[in-house]
Amino acid sequence: MIKATPFDYPYDGRLDPRSTALVVIDLQEDFLSPTGYFARQGYDPSPLRAILPTVNQLIDAARAVGIRIIHTRQGYRGDMADMTPYEKWRRSRAGLDGTQVLLRSGPGFEIVSDIEVRPEDIIVDKTCNGAFTYTDFEHVLRAQGITHLLFSGCTTDVCVHTTLREACDRNFQCLTISDACASGDQRAHEAALHMVTVENGIFGALTNSAAVLAGLAKLPRAGA
Amino acid sequence: MIKATPFDYPYDGRLDPRSTALVVIDLQEDFLSPTGYFARQGYDPSPLRAILPTVNQLIDAARAVGIRIIHTRQGYRGDMADMTPYEKWRRSRAGLDGTQVLLRSGPGFEIVSDIEVRPEDIIVDKTCNGAFTYTDFEHVLRAQGITHLLFSGCTTDVCVHTTLREACDRNFQCLTISDACASGDQRAHEAALHMVTVENGIFGALTNSAAVLAGLAKLPRAGA
Amino acid sequence: MIKATPFDYPYDGRLDPRSTALVVIDLQEDFLSPTGYFARQGYDPSPLRAILPTVNQLIDAARAVGIRIIHTRQGYRGDMADMTPYEKWRRSRAGLDGTQVLLRSGPGFEIVSDIEVRPEDIIVDKTCNGAFTYTDFEHVLRAQGITHLLFSGCTTDVCVHTTLREACDRNFQCLTISDACASGDQRAHEAALHMVTVENGIFGALTNSAAVLAGLAKLPRAGA
Amino acid sequence: MIKATPFDYPYDGRLDPRSTALVVIDLQEDFLSPTGYFARQGYDPSPLRAILPTVNQLIDAARAVGIRIIHTRQGYRGDMADMTPYEKWRRSRAGLDGTQVLLRSGPGFEIVSDIEVRPEDIIVDKTCNGAFTYTDFEHVLRAQGITHLLFSGCTTDVCVHTTLREACDRNFQCLTISDACASGDQRAHEAALHMVTVENGIFGALTNSAAVLAGLAKLPRAGA
Repeated sequence: MIKATPFDYPYDGRLDPRSTALVVIDLQEDFLSPTGYFARQGYDPSPLRAILPTVNQLIDAARAVGIRIIHTRQGYRGDMADMTPYEKWRRSRAGLDGTQVLLRSGPGFEIVSDIEVRPEDIIVDKTCNGAFTYTDFEHVLRAQGITHLLFSGCTTDVCVHTTLREACDRNFQCLTISDACASGDQRAHEAALHMVTVENGIFGALTNSAAVLAGLAKLPRAGA
Repeated sequence: MIKATPFDYPYDGRLDPRSTALVVIDLQEDFLSPTGYFARQGYDPSPLRAILPTVNQLIDAARAVGIRIIHTRQGYRGDMADMTPYEKWRRSRAGLDGTQVLLRSGPGFEIVSDIEVRPEDIIVDKTCNGAFTYTDFEHVLRAQGITHLLFSGCTTDVCVHTTLREACDRNFQCLTISDACASGDQRAHEAALHMVTVENGIFGALTNSAAVLAGLAKLPRAGA
Repeated sequence: MIKATPFDYPYDGRLDPRSTALVVIDLQEDFLSPTGYFARQGYDPSPLRAILPTVNQLIDAARAVGIRIIHTRQGYRGDMADMTPYEKWRRSRAGLDGTQVLLRSGPGFEIVSDIEVRPEDIIVDKTCNGAFTYTDFEHVLRAQGITHLLFSGCTTDVCVHTTLREACDRNFQCLTISDACASGDQRAHEAALHMVTVENGIFGALTNSAAVLAGLAKLPRAGA
Repeated sequence: MIKATPFDYPYDGRLDPRSTALVVIDLQEDFLSPTGYFARQGYDPSPLRAILPTVNQLIDAARAVGIRIIHTRQGYRGDMADMTPYEKWRRSRAGLDGTQVLLRSGPGFEIVSDIEVRPEDIIVDKTCNGAFTYTDFEHVLRAQGITHLLFSGCTTDVCVHTTLREACDRNFQCLTISDACASGDQRAHEAALHMVTVENGIFGALTNSAAVLAGLAKLPRAGA
């Protein structure tokens, strides 16, 4: 059980590591690097970098009890076959023509080296903001029997929130970890966290990393 | 062409009524009535009622140029066959046991009489916040050749925003009309509008009803 | 456990009525009536009518042990908003212009009166051949915790097989009941049944109604 | 226009290479090699190898007029994260434990060298039989404005037919090329082709490679 608002998580008190995943959204060079997509759009990536130690603590604690880690990566196909004329227009407008920014073939697609991706982790590559759309994310979750998702990553207001909303609509039990999510737009970040709690938890429950760590510490260690 | 931010809509200047729909999200008794679901949750529905004249103006202007009107309605099956134990727990916690609130079989499911639903309008019933999930919404849009969506309705931060995000991920051209959307939570409403514009229009363009009316007024009248 | 080929069903021997549904595909007037869509296409609906007693036996046996009955119905929206120009062309070519055939607003949409639809049954309306596409079928199944599907209905080669294939790809455990399915095209019917078993059960297991009835008879009666 | 049955393709006579793709399903080592998955299941892969010259002729003719080539590949994730206990049981039963058969990490996942995959081709990797399920196939098609699909590959009765059915339900205009598809089960192959034509073209139109080549020869050559 993890202390959270507007209700503790999960609602029925049954936290089973085998049916739970820690979802780490888009902690890629393109968003966190000072020369990546996000910085080129005029955003300061330092709030995104600031959550890395917290995300790593969560990853370690999750692994210790046998919770699966799922990383998502955002990027278009290298040949842009999945890009519409509109998206090409936006790309051009952002001054990205001729670059490898936001392409799977570019270095910005990689998860930052600060995050340890292990062979047993699951990586889901996506083109959309939502990780459920046009990917095998739901397929993998159902195959693994994963029904509970803990959300971290960036950005809170865009890819985290779209994926969170998709997960709720598909009836996954969702917990958003406030200080393990970040955005380049502080107002949007805070509002996105607030939105989780409207209508008494329309998008599940909200908590912070300390509460998650405390909750996981009560579980038996995996393999012990 | 409709004046909007961060870019005018649509981006290529080609506004074709035949491929455009005005989406009116969830203007139902359950959200707008003083005795409906939303009011029972402690929200003041008056900001939702306040947009009705604006939405009606938009509907009239859209009809005049041949833009299709699509209404969505939120509600569970009358027998709750589409409701999980978690949702039943939330329902009970909200004091809704034994009521018809948020059920398709109840009076709250109806679109408020202030909005004129015509036989040629399209109605999409949904259980999720997102109108694309587990419905024929996308099927109807593709069959009709509709690629451009103008968003209105409630609530801005929940069902409008989830549907908007789904539409963007499916490459529909999206325009959110600020004063034709509303929420019971003013901060969430304003933040949801702000989010549309982050990353130079991550969820398309944002405008107000005056700009839409001005833009539509330049189009030839349907059947003229 | 139900005797089946190429392996008994379910594969792990755990047949739990609460997670099982009997799916009855499209037993509607439009397919079974001598004046419905199917007959107008030149097909003899008598093989479809011939399975009704068997389907009813299965429905009774399923209900007795607490297995949920899910009926699907095929039909376009009454205003044809979900119909493409191509489908309108096919409709016209089939001589159906001006009729209510295959429309949800027409009498052919109804499930034949030979099949008893009870209030606790679930009905899924679809436009596609596959019941999972653009409907809430999967949503309802997941919400109910239903993971095992027994297939009956018509036609074996079109709507039953498309839905069966969709179910397999979504990892539902599927059993096709040969004599509870029918088609107007005997060769296609038989081949569709054969296809279930290729690659050692690519679409799950195949059996007949006698084996299902024998298997269900071994389960405790619901409410007993 | 391509001569086909039960109607010529496309139905409206407008064959536009820019909105057409030749889909080549699963021509991988695992299906065609004498030591691959298919051969290990007891099937003779020679009918599958026999279509390779025909598929290559079609690919050349399609390229010459500017029709895009889309290859699909079937395979599980190397770590089997997308595999259910049931699929692992089937895998074990087929004697595949400890092998790389049907895994994306294995050599059988590769498209056979007889087929020339060019950098401008699109490759869609899938776990399901249907290429639309849990992949970005539809996303790419919509982004490219592709609405017309010509089907080839293997096996006719399983992956070709499931993908064809999904495509029809999503309103793509579909043409199945009989002698460019193959299966290890001749009866299932022939029946699958027959099924395309039931109900006057329930799964679109059926033709052979000669008719496709004749139809494409009438189009202007790309870049000419």
